[in-house]
Amino acid sequence: MINRKLLIASTSAIYGKPYLDYLTEELDQLYNGIDNIVFIPFARPGGISYHDYSDIARKFFSKLGKKLIGIHEYDNMREMLNECEGIFTGGGNTFVLLNSLYKHKLVEPLRKCVLAGIPYLGTSAGSNILGISIQTTNDMPIVYPPSFTALGVVPFNINPHYTDSDPDSKYMGETREARIKEFLVFNNVPVTGLRDGSYFIINDTEIKLGGIHSVRIFERSTKPYELYPGSDLLFLLNKNE
Amino acid sequence: MINRKLLIASTSAIYGKPYLDYLTEELDQLYNGIDNIVFIPFARPGGISYHDYSDIARKFFSKLGKKLIGIHEYDNMREMLNECEGIFTGGGNTFVLLNSLYKHKLVEPLRKCVLAGIPYLGTSAGSNILGISIQTTNDMPIVYPPSFTALGVVPFNINPHYTDSDPDSKYMGETREARIKEFLVFNNVPVTGLRDGSYFIINDTEIKLGGIHSVRIFERSTKPYELYPGSDLLFLLNKNE
Repeated sequence: MINRKLLIASTSAIYGKPYLDYLTEELDQLYNGIDNIVFIPFARPGGISYHDYSDIARKFFSKLGKKLIGIHEYDNMREMLNECEGIFTGGGNTFVLLNSLYKHKLVEPLRKCVLAGIPYLGTSAGSNILGISIQTTNDMPIVYPPSFTALGVVPFNINPHYTDSDPDSKYMGETREARIKEFLVFNNVPVTGLRDGSYFIINDTEIKLGGIHSVRIFERSTKPYELYPGSDLLFLLNKNE
Repeated sequence: MINRKLLIASTSAIYGKPYLDYLTEELDQLYNGIDNIVFIPFARPGGISYHDYSDIARKFFSKLGKKLIGIHEYDNMREMLNECEGIFTGGGNTFVLLNSLYKHKLVEPLRKCVLAGIPYLGTSAGSNILGISIQTTNDMPIVYPPSFTALGVVPFNINPHYTDSDPDSKYMGETREARIKEFLVFNNVPVTGLRDGSYFIINDTEIKLGGIHSVRIFERSTKPYELYPGSDLLFLLNKNE
């Protein structure tokens, strides 16, 4: 029996809407009955401080009647994870996030925590680290982590902010799809291209796609294809489990 | 006295034009008097084989009357670098390229070769590795190299395929500019945002910008700014030298 209560979102905000606003209903459900949420601010979007980043998240959750505390405020972060009720890992730079988790020896404790069924919200980089590796991030490698191996609480990789290529573009760099296909040449791990506004909800062994977009699935030896809200996604969870 | 004969291009092809075509005149000059060019195909765009990638490059250079040989065709790649007349490192995935250079113990020999004044053409990933580190690549980290440290034959970093953000975009991932600014929070290395069709030509201690676009310069504690073909770029080479 696998325990998991995950909300895996591509982005923390959709265009023109306030921070986390579009996820309000889902978050009411995810964190139902929970008063205290531990926030992991390590991804530091734009290099923001842990303090300032936690304040942004705190502001939103106070509206839901939840208390949010940044994990950096604890002397013993590992112990704290053992006792926490709910977790939110915000977006930013995925390399910086994973590097900090390794530095503070939090990868394994966080993994255990998630697999013990503690409700977890990830947005962007915070979603990315739930997969097998961070090797399908869009971020720049601005720090060198000791490994690209991530939590692996889902048996696939995530590409947040997935974006379709513009057929009229004169950009000569690789498209997102080309980059993910390159990943598959070197790694045999399915990749989910999660568009902004889309999210997975995983309840133990159930998975559904939320939001209005389809998700693009990339697998070795298969043409990329789309799955829609309402589609059966269960094969994604059964891949390597 | 520093020897360097570099053509550092954002891209191998501009929109609607054949491979390397837009650089023909510059390459005639760079490789003037040289018959044999060693090609480094390690970046493997789209996972293409070394053989097939070398064929693409060979086709172009045969039109210029140059013989091109893939470095993988040599038994002793390090020795070969000591003897070569000219080098071209093609684009693809920067992590895969740098990882292969480390694997074959070619980072230091290649660096020495370039600093001995052997003419070098880099496109995209092949340009990226000339900087201090590959930490401003756009590529996905599809393999884990032993280090992000690059050749450092120029004292700045390169962001190839630099692209301005579209003010009308609803994309919620980071813009290229935001990513480079994040890099500067963690690293004090100037970054040059090189647009497709732009290239640096470096002759020993001289540097000029080729192509029709400006280059965007990112430095810590300074607002990003543009420099134009004809601008004095010498400060870039004097940064840490």
